[in-house]
Amino acid sequence: MCQHCPTHTTNPSVTLSVHLPEWINEVVDWQHPLHSDDDKMALAVELARQNVLRGTGGPFASIIIHRTSGQLLSVGVNQVVAQNNSTLHGEVMAIMLGEQRLQTFSLGNSSDEYELFTSCEPCAMCMGAILWSGVKRLVCAATGDDARAIGFDEGPVFEQSYAYLRNAGIDVVRGMLQPEGKAVLELYLQQGGKLYNGKADD
Amino acid sequence: MCQHCPTHTTNPSVTLSVHLPEWINEVVDWQHPLHSDDDKMALAVELARQNVLRGTGGPFASIIIHRTSGQLLSVGVNQVVAQNNSTLHGEVMAIMLGEQRLQTFSLGNSSDEYELFTSCEPCAMCMGAILWSGVKRLVCAATGDDARAIGFDEGPVFEQSYAYLRNAGIDVVRGMLQPEGKAVLELYLQQGGKLYNGKADD
Repeated sequence: MCQHCPTHTTNPSVTLSVHLPEWINEVVDWQHPLHSDDDKMALAVELARQNVLRGTGGPFASIIIHRTSGQLLSVGVNQVVAQNNSTLHGEVMAIMLGEQRLQTFSLGNSSDEYELFTSCEPCAMCMGAILWSGVKRLVCAATGDDARAIGFDEGPVFEQSYAYLRNAGIDVVRGMLQPEGKAVLELYLQQGGKLYNGKADD
Repeated sequence: MCQHCPTHTTNPSVTLSVHLPEWINEVVDWQHPLHSDDDKMALAVELARQNVLRGTGGPFASIIIHRTSGQLLSVGVNQVVAQNNSTLHGEVMAIMLGEQRLQTFSLGNSSDEYELFTSCEPCAMCMGAILWSGVKRLVCAATGDDARAIGFDEGPVFEQSYAYLRNAGIDVVRGMLQPEGKAVLELYLQQGGKLYNGKADD
């Protein structure tokens, strides 16, 4: 049901519902604050790994954390194939759900600061989405090259894209727990996970 | 309600519903095929204009068309502020709804080809989203500079981003009905529409 417009429920052209897999609440302890960068990234990577092991999506996940308290705001795992929606990358899921939770269109519009940890460097779409989300810090595990190495396309994302984010005031850290993030990508490949790049006949 | 997982309905951390404004079906004739590029872009621009005039969102809209029949697959208007979701640009709305309608994660995975008409050149996020959507043709009205001129940020999108899309097999046309698209941006500015760029204290 569209929560705002009940009459729209039957028309697939104007309403849409998305959701995280049911197992999320088995893995995520929403009450437990995460204080170290290692612990935060470990959760992002674990969510990506569980998404692969449980067969619910691509090998990518992100979490958004309130910087001073370490409280989790939201998490996202890739749901592109599972929900027939090419925009549902882990970063986009986490951003949409985090903004919904705070009822804001920008996490940068309050005195509280948020940071996004992602199991793999963002594709071009997610680089833009991260900028618009208002998070103040972006921390990445696996590299874009790691993703390309198993056959994923990252789209038009360049070194100057990272410079653009930094110029916009976002602190960017790359390569944190990179081997662990890369291992999830390789696990996906070993399990015969679907590669999808928006092109014809993928 | 999350259509797949009714038990998730009460948890804002794991489910999300989005929708187009109620007036969409007053403006869009879903049965009427559009055969000329001018007619297609005129609808995209009109949707952006109605979104401004009716106060339901930012001055941006997109439509996705089945190339050979001219039938509308989906439409999208900017819903960032209206639905507290920084990812709900017109392009993303049209892509999500179009893929849902066909129950596919790539519009490029069939023998049918689709094209996306947007009232303004895509931001960085939407450039990526368009690539993953599998549309075969991108047609733009107002320019990124037109959007920047009224205060919107386009993010890390560069000339080489367009080259990347073309190399991926997407036919890109820019500047179609550009004055009309730009006029909608200026209308939004005149009406005191909210500018939002993801930065703190916008």
